Formats: sequence, C-alpha cells, structure tokens
Amino acid sequence: MKLAIVFGAQSFEHEISIVSAIAMKKVLKCEIVYIFCNNDRRFFLIPTDKITSKRFSSGEYLKDKELFIKQGGFFAKKLLGEEKIHYDCVLNLIHGADGEDGKISALCDFFSIPYIGPRLEASSISYNKLFTKLFAKEVGVNVLPYQLLRKESPEEIRIPFPIILKPLRLGSSIGISIVQEASELSYALDVAFEFDTAVLVEPFIHGIKEYNLAGAYLNDGFHFSIIEEPQKEAFLDFDKKYLDFSRTKRVNEASLSLVAQEALKNAFVALYQPLFQGALIRCDFFIHEETVYLNEINPVPGSMANYLFDDFETLLEGLSNALPKGVVMPPQSYHYIHSIQSAKGK
Amino acid sequence: MKLAIVFGAQSFEHEISIVSAIAMKKVLKCEIVYIFCNNDRRFFLIPTDKITSKRFSSGEYLKDKELFIKQGGFFAKKLLGEEKIHYDCVLNLIHGADGEDGKISALCDFFSIPYIGPRLEASSISYNKLFTKLFAKEVGVNVLPYQLLRKESPEEIRIPFPIILKPLRLGSSIGISIVQEASELSYALDVAFEFDTAVLVEPFIHGIKEYNLAGAYLNDGFHFSIIEEPQKEAFLDFDKKYLDFSRTKRVNEASLSLVAQEALKNAFVALYQPLFQGALIRCDFFIHEETVYLNEINPVPGSMANYLFDDFETLLEGLSNALPKGVVMPPQSYHYIHSIQSAKGK
Repeated sequence: MKLAIVFGAQSFEHEISIVSAIAMKKVLKCEIVYIFCNNDRRFFLIPTDKITSKRFSSGEYLKDKELFIKQGGFFAKKLLGEEKIHYDCVLNLIHGADGEDGKISALCDFFSIPYIGPRLEASSISYNKLFTKLFAKEVGVNVLPYQLLRKESPEEIRIPFPIILKPLRLGSSIGISIVQEASELSYALDVAFEFDTAVLVEPFIHGIKEYNLAGAYLNDGFHFSIIEEPQKEAFLDFDKKYLDFSRTKRVNEASLSLVAQEALKNAFVALYQPLFQGALIRCDFFIHEETVYLNEINPVPGSMANYLFDDFETLLEGLSNALPKGVVMPPQSYHYIHSIQSAKGK
Repeated sequence: MKLAIVFGAQSFEHEISIVSAIAMKKVLKCEIVYIFCNNDRRFFLIPTDKITSKRFSSGEYLKDKELFIKQGGFFAKKLLGEEKIHYDCVLNLIHGADGEDGKISALCDFFSIPYIGPRLEASSISYNKLFTKLFAKEVGVNVLPYQLLRKESPEEIRIPFPIILKPLRLGSSIGISIVQEASELSYALDVAFEFDTAVLVEPFIHGIKEYNLAGAYLNDGFHFSIIEEPQKEAFLDFDKKYLDFSRTKRVNEASLSLVAQEALKNAFVALYQPLFQGALIRCDFFIHEETVYLNEINPVPGSMANYLFDDFETLLEGLSNALPKGVVMPPQSYHYIHSIQSAKGK
C-alpha cells in the first residue's frame, strides 16, 4: 500500500495535524506520500525523508513542489505538461476544519480520489455537536442533556452548574471551559464564542468515567481497538490533548466488565453503520450510573488512534480495500432534453 | 452584478439543472457567466449568447473553453499562463447530487469563491431526508411520521398503507412511489433502492394540502415569496416536476388565512436561521388538520423559484451581499510546534 497523507489545512488544529502526520511515519512501514495543505489551502508535496515540524513552522515547505487537485488526483506542473502523484489511497489526516467538516471529503469525492476518512454526510454529523446529539438519539445511543446558545440571541442557561461549554464545531478541547458558578460564565462564553457563533452547554458531572473506543468496518466485519480510559485531570485541555496527537505507543486497556465492553461496542456499531464507512473513527463515551452516553465522534482521531490497535497498519490497509462506493451514476442520456426538443420540433 | 451560474454535474438531476440554468437567462437582466460541469465533473465556459439545451445533449460544449477550479476561482489555460474568469458571485444551480449534497459548497468554501447556495452543513441536513426530519423536530417544526429502510437489513414496514416511499437522498420526485397496498410494495422498493441504499417511508395522506414558500435572509431581514399551492395529481411525478424547472412566469397565490400564512413563515424562519444563510431556499410544507408539517427543504430550488417572487433579480443581488462569512482563521502562529521545538532544545 502506498498511502498519501493529506494534512494541515486552514484549521485551528493545523499544527496538531502536522504532529499527527509525522507520527504516522513512526508507526507505518508502508510507503508514504506527504501532501501538505497550507493555511492558504495550497498543496505541497513534502519529501518523506525530510519531514519535520520545523519544515512547516519555518515556511521551508514553500520551496517544495506545489500540487494541484483536479479530476483524478493531485498533479505537479512540469516544464511541459504535468505529472500525476501516484498512491493507492489518500488518508485524510486533517483535524478540525477542512478535514473533519467535510471539505476534504467533498474534494476527494468530486475529483474521484479514493480516501480513508469520513464521507461528507458523516463529517457534517460528527463535526457539529448538535447534529451528533440528534443523530445519536435517532440510532438509540444516549447523550447528556444539552442546550444550544447562539451569539446573536443570548438566552438564560437552563442547565444547573457546574456546566461545560463547548464551541459547537471544534474538536481537541479548543475553547472548552468548565464553569463552576455564575461568576465564571461570562468569560467562558467569550472564549467559546471566539471559535464559533454557537456554543453547546452540557452538565459537567464530577467523576464521570470516560472511555475511548476506535474501530472501522472492513470487508470481514468490524475491527475494534482496545478500550482506553483516557488519563484526565478534570478534563483534558488543549495542551494535554495536543501531546496525544503524537502518541505512537500502546496504552493500557481500561478495566471494564464484559457487559460494559459489549455496551460500548454496540453503541459504536449503531453510530458507525453505515454513515462512517470508509473511516477509522474514535468514539469517546461516558459511563455514568451504568448507562453509556456518547460524548463525541472523532472521524479523524489524533494520530489515527494507532496506539489503541494491535496491528494498526493491517487495519489501515484493510480499510483502504473497504471504501464505500456510493451510488453509481450512469452517463447522461439527455432523454428529457431530447424529448423537449422533439416536442418543440427542433 | 455579474453572476456565474454553475450547473450540470454528476447528478440524476443533471438535465433539469441545464433547464434551470437556461431559464435564468429569461428572468435576469444582469450579466451571466455560464459555467457548466459535465457528468465527468469537468468545467466548461459556455458562451451566454449560445446557450441552448442542445449544446449539452449533443456534446457540442466539449469545444467550449475548459476551466479549472483552484484557489481564488475558475481559470482557463492560455498559451502562456492562465486567465481568471471574472464575476462577483457564483450561483450554485446544480440540483441533486454534487450541488445539493454539499460538494460544490465545499469546493467554493475551500477555494474562497463567494457563492449563493446552501453551505456544507445546510446541504447535508436538507439532502438527507432523515437528517431533515431530525433537524426540523429540533427547531420545533412538525414532520410526518417516518421509518427508515436499509437495503442491507430489510424490516417490516410499521406504517399502515397507503404509504409513500422516497429514496433517502434525492429530490425532484425521482424514485418516489405511492404504495396503496402490500402487493405493490416490492416493485416500489426496487425502484427506490435503485437510487439510494436507504428509503424513507411516510404515511400517504389523501387530500393533504401542500404549500411552497421560498425566501432568503438579506441584510435587512427576511424576504419571502408568495405562498404557492402547487398543482398536483396525487403527487407530482418527475415529468411534471421537470417542467417546473423551466418556469419563469408568476403563479397564483394560495388562498390561505393570515394565521396559516404566519405559521408557514414562522416555520420557514425556524428552519432557515442561521443554517441556510447565503441560500435562497424553498420549503415545501403540508397543512393537515390545521397543523403545519415540513415536507422538504430545497436549498437549490428549480429555476431558483423565481416565479414566486415579485422582484427576483433584486433579491438575488441582495443575497449576494449577505453571504455568511464563517469563522475568520488567523494565520498559523506555529506556537505549539515552536514550544515543542524549544522543549526539545532544537
């Protein structure tokens, strides 16, 4: 398998995408083609043997070969004509905007590029925390109660303190605050509204247990990761989660009853199938008073949650062979236009 | 205003998009640039004075100038270098797949092209009839009961006959059947599953009243169309709806009490704001036993529902000045990568 990793892009999580992409070099033995999308959304082919985080922060990558996306893939200009970049499959490793909101999926679908990652609809559902709630409820997975606040129409918060505020559409804990009492509210709202025009409010439950489960549907069925109980102090802030993205070592499995493990897997399957086909996702769950709740769906998890799998590379390769095909469109027959034309006698 | 109309694309509604696009020439006085997307998703600049439906059905358009989409807009290759196509704003006039499913929105957002049309999230919500239901319920708009059938996991239909079957993700009545009794079911399912892997089942209510209301949010507030009671025999099939897309003449206003009109407008606002900002949408409602139900949201309505407005062109121009700006991303500071580098002493 020759994998083209697309990363970076115009996102608050641009830097952690770079860290994630570099982490892949440590865990994958296959050939990797690195396609960097910069903050202006120009694509560059980064030499795999020369990739370092400094190449991006220093702007050195601007000297690398620029690529163009068009029907069929990524291309580099040559003196005469152009050259196609070869790979078997793209891995969408853009975290946050552009990558998890559906833009890169749409580009790949439009330009007929095979890719591992959430499809457009799946992206919209997982990127917007309100839509995630609506969808989870529809497929029978519990979620914590919530309230949506909009910048332009402030309203009273109906959920009792302590609460947690989250920008409606970001990942990686950016802009998230725990608010213990009313006096802290105004500052926390300002922070959250810096990142989105809408904010989701949820109860903050002390000591709630959090469990992460990753997985994907391959041609022979579901493949799950181990279940991890993430380390946390109150909750992971951005700096701590950031370190997460460079993780390449196995973690310890959470100690959970078989019943609880099954409950998490069942919830995962209900959420995944068929919306997330083609993606390796990590679902972050809560268990509280023996009930499973979905916290969030990460359709492009930090460093692809490689540290949760026994054989990450085989999984990724299997996934590249299990990408959804979508509806096959026949060529246009122009049947209706022909019939209008004959009706008009033209 | 110089408007670039993007139309066609890889969609079951490709041909009606062509008809819609040509209809725009009759109703708009402004300068129009026609950008055709063919079934292979290549873009062509169609001379405005030469546009006819035959140009597409005959393949004659293949001799027109081919365009490329990249950062900043659409470009044509020249002997030396390239030339940017100039316009003030794109009008997304692709019906169905590619246009209403979010792909063109994603391309325009990614490549910084201003456009009239639904944004990516709005597209996902309106294109998938299940998501439309979930969203409508969340914002307090009623929907008819429904059941989702998946091709791969058949189940008993729980809704009593007569029922209506709809492919989960298509518009324009394609693949839709009314099923009066069990004996007709199997054929109707086959038809619907030809177009999607999932089918939505709803009760078919004889004599239910249907009302269409279009509108958009401009800088000075909401602008609504007249409310139309569409002509229908049982329900509009594709051939009849098809004619709809070339409509350029005003229709008669539905005879409705002020209370009912207000109820439709309130439902429209609840659905539109803020998700559909930037788009002129048509909401198709039912009124049954004095209750308003949402049937569907058309975020790229046939011929832009121009025939429902008094001054369509001014509305479109106002909308081009009221496009949502989204979250402004600052340039990347590479703060985290710098701090990792200094921690490592690099």
